[in-house]
Amino acid sequence: MRYGIVIFPSKPVQDEINAYRKRYDPHYSLIPPHVTLKEAFDADDEEIDKLITEMKHIANKTDPFTINVNKVSTFAPVTNTIYLKVEPIQELFDLAETMQSGKFPENQTYSYVPHITIAQKLSQDEYSDVYGSLSMKNIQFEDKIDRFHLLYQLDNDVWTVYESFVFGKEYV
Amino acid sequence: MRYGIVIFPSKPVQDEINAYRKRYDPHYSLIPPHVTLKEAFDADDEEIDKLITEMKHIANKTDPFTINVNKVSTFAPVTNTIYLKVEPIQELFDLAETMQSGKFPENQTYSYVPHITIAQKLSQDEYSDVYGSLSMKNIQFEDKIDRFHLLYQLDNDVWTVYESFVFGKEYV
Repeated sequence: MRYGIVIFPSKPVQDEINAYRKRYDPHYSLIPPHVTLKEAFDADDEEIDKLITEMKHIANKTDPFTINVNKVSTFAPVTNTIYLKVEPIQELFDLAETMQSGKFPENQTYSYVPHITIAQKLSQDEYSDVYGSLSMKNIQFEDKIDRFHLLYQLDNDVWTVYESFVFGKEYV
Repeated sequence: MRYGIVIFPSKPVQDEINAYRKRYDPHYSLIPPHVTLKEAFDADDEEIDKLITEMKHIANKTDPFTINVNKVSTFAPVTNTIYLKVEPIQELFDLAETMQSGKFPENQTYSYVPHITIAQKLSQDEYSDVYGSLSMKNIQFEDKIDRFHLLYQLDNDVWTVYESFVFGKEYV
């Protein structure tokens, strides 16, 4: 099965971000707004059971933290994805890094950039328009994070949550 | 915020069910295939924290169980919803009942019928056609259940998972 690990911002933040994604992100209906910690990877049942134990340990070692978003950015020219830049904080890098080591498969191809995608797979013209208009907006928020989620992907590409990992609250 | 409590069947079962839902269920893109344990209810942050503790206790007291689906059924004439009938087993009734008592708000208006919706909000003509054709299909499966999920609803009506409760594995 194909899994991924993400952080979901709180409902008010998800609602605000979805207003943009609805227009510009074809993945809008496949997954709620999220910060990816680990990109999609394959694991069988036995492997994922071991990783779940790892994720519980990781969650127990992590304290709740605050994320901040202050600006819109883009991965262009690599891809024309437009995203909300999550201010880089050690907690996010630590989580992402831990999930590339030990029992976890290594599947990170670019250096880790914490972000929330709001537009992707646009034509070049659309991209320029949308990036221009989104850059002018004052999108700012802070949000308290106290958990991450393990998701798996269905055949229709929708991601479903398999398990939540609440910081300091997991029984191993 | 608006919450709900559901069981998600395993991925192979979800994929099979989605093949029907895609055509007949307008909620297809709002939530993966599920067995509702407790219909949508409202709770503030303080209330939901208390209920989460309750749900951990409930999960810890529940052993994994097997659900079986053997036939298609309908809520007509009350609504023209078509569903997969989940064979009634005590574990499901116990879970649903517990979530109507104690600190949980009582919000069950009909007697509890464990089911997985595959078609709803059809016109009367569509309903007759679809029910006729689905009734002829041999939809049968069994599935192991070891957890339930607490979801909340976003402004766009999509349900996101807030927390998973794995039977016998929750730290309270």
